[in-house]
Amino acid sequence: MAPAFGKIVVCGVGLIGGSFALALKAAGAASQVCGIGRSRATLDEALSRGLIDRVGACDAATLGDADLVLLATPVGQMPQLMQAMAPHLGERSVVTDGGSTKGDVIAAARRFLPRQLGRFVPAHPIAGAENSGAAAARADLYAGRKVVLTPLPENDADALARVRAAWIACGAEVHEMAPDRHDQVFAAVSHLPHLLSFALVHELAGREDREEFFRFAASGFRDFTRIAASHPEMWRDICLANRTALLGELERYQGQLETLHRALLEQDAAAIEAVFAEARTVRRAWDEGKLS
Amino acid sequence: MAPAFGKIVVCGVGLIGGSFALALKAAGAASQVCGIGRSRATLDEALSRGLIDRVGACDAATLGDADLVLLATPVGQMPQLMQAMAPHLGERSVVTDGGSTKGDVIAAARRFLPRQLGRFVPAHPIAGAENSGAAAARADLYAGRKVVLTPLPENDADALARVRAAWIACGAEVHEMAPDRHDQVFAAVSHLPHLLSFALVHELAGREDREEFFRFAASGFRDFTRIAASHPEMWRDICLANRTALLGELERYQGQLETLHRALLEQDAAAIEAVFAEARTVRRAWDEGKLS
Repeated sequence: MAPAFGKIVVCGVGLIGGSFALALKAAGAASQVCGIGRSRATLDEALSRGLIDRVGACDAATLGDADLVLLATPVGQMPQLMQAMAPHLGERSVVTDGGSTKGDVIAAARRFLPRQLGRFVPAHPIAGAENSGAAAARADLYAGRKVVLTPLPENDADALARVRAAWIACGAEVHEMAPDRHDQVFAAVSHLPHLLSFALVHELAGREDREEFFRFAASGFRDFTRIAASHPEMWRDICLANRTALLGELERYQGQLETLHRALLEQDAAAIEAVFAEARTVRRAWDEGKLS
Repeated sequence: MAPAFGKIVVCGVGLIGGSFALALKAAGAASQVCGIGRSRATLDEALSRGLIDRVGACDAATLGDADLVLLATPVGQMPQLMQAMAPHLGERSVVTDGGSTKGDVIAAARRFLPRQLGRFVPAHPIAGAENSGAAAARADLYAGRKVVLTPLPENDADALARVRAAWIACGAEVHEMAPDRHDQVFAAVSHLPHLLSFALVHELAGREDREEFFRFAASGFRDFTRIAASHPEMWRDICLANRTALLGELERYQGQLETLHRALLEQDAAAIEAVFAEARTVRRAWDEGKLS
């Protein structure tokens, strides 16, 4: 059986793009993978690790006969990338992306890929990791993970089906959501926790006597702040790209802290316990897959 | 060689008290362990698991000849416990505790154990866990963990040495701090993160459409909210017991969030990245033991 895809082009061969390439090749779903990137060193590493078969460029030779193009750069670089590739994409090339935010990526596509909107299917693989870069890529990154597609009204049914098939070939569980809803949900469950974790470590880091604080930080602190070791530029871009939804979530959270602050001031034990108890009940139910 | 301690009395045979008993017995440092508690079922479980040798009560028979007494109940119950045991403690009984907060425990000791202050040495073993109760107790809970002693000016040198020796026999690394400083440090690195984690889950838990949010929550959320599965009453007590320090830390954190809120509103990419980058640098250094 011939592979489902002929030539795949991956723009940005880091964790997301490199793992997509490896997974499709491992599944026998791609006959050729071509990589595009800003850093020659990264592309060479991707070549030597077998993530890609060859290095391409943002030109007709690379893109004109591409079956499927994945944009896997930081979201901040996508508008420029779309603009650069627009003239060179083939008539049949289907484009998807791996960005953590969708509203901004879609706005960029409407601006820079207006003629290709039917074949641009936005996607968000939920498979981040603290480590990034080509060295962290692996064929099973998406196995059993969720990928959210946020199709556009303009999308061709065939393009949508092909993008869905590609992610399923990677082993992912594919969901669909409206872009706005996607951005709100991920602002709440991903972007805000990252911001909160960075904020806690930053607050302590700025103290003259920080060493004594960190010396006694234990496993709870370790878990809570694990995501504060994430990539600063990437998360800056995500927070800015999704700032409207994130500001809404941040304000709701600030309201929660105000409530708890007041309860502490007033020594309102019942109010504090009610917050903690509901959180624990729901957190445990979620962990056990019993949340409804 | 005779054990370092004759009779040990553990008040509250949960994770902290039960593990202390097991560790001392495993080290051959106690000849007899007697348990006191409010729940007969818990005491029976502690007996059947060998955490304690027998069940005692808050009376002269149990406490009069005790070498070492550990208060291992939730901190909210300690004042009442101290009051109940005060008339029965022996002249040579040394008392310590396992509370996560020290200012309130010391205040209770000054009120209810005024004649025993020389032999009451406050302690905080840094060995929490999501699970609590006698069933979670284990002999190696304290191995390699930190225990902070916050000695009182009134403490006998001998009592301090004996409490130190007991925790060292449990395998712990013993530190000393002033009580106020202890409470500030733990408000920052433990109590505040718990409050923040509970608050995030609670905020989402109250939404009608919460299921969709939790469905897409991934590993970052899982780590960040692990401590939101902690014991609600225990953490309510800790937050109230240490409310002055916790309010100070919470207000500093709210200030951080204000700064990030403003930076997001103003799309100040440099300010956001500066916060995230410093947090990541310090978090990684801490993880690698290179923080100075």
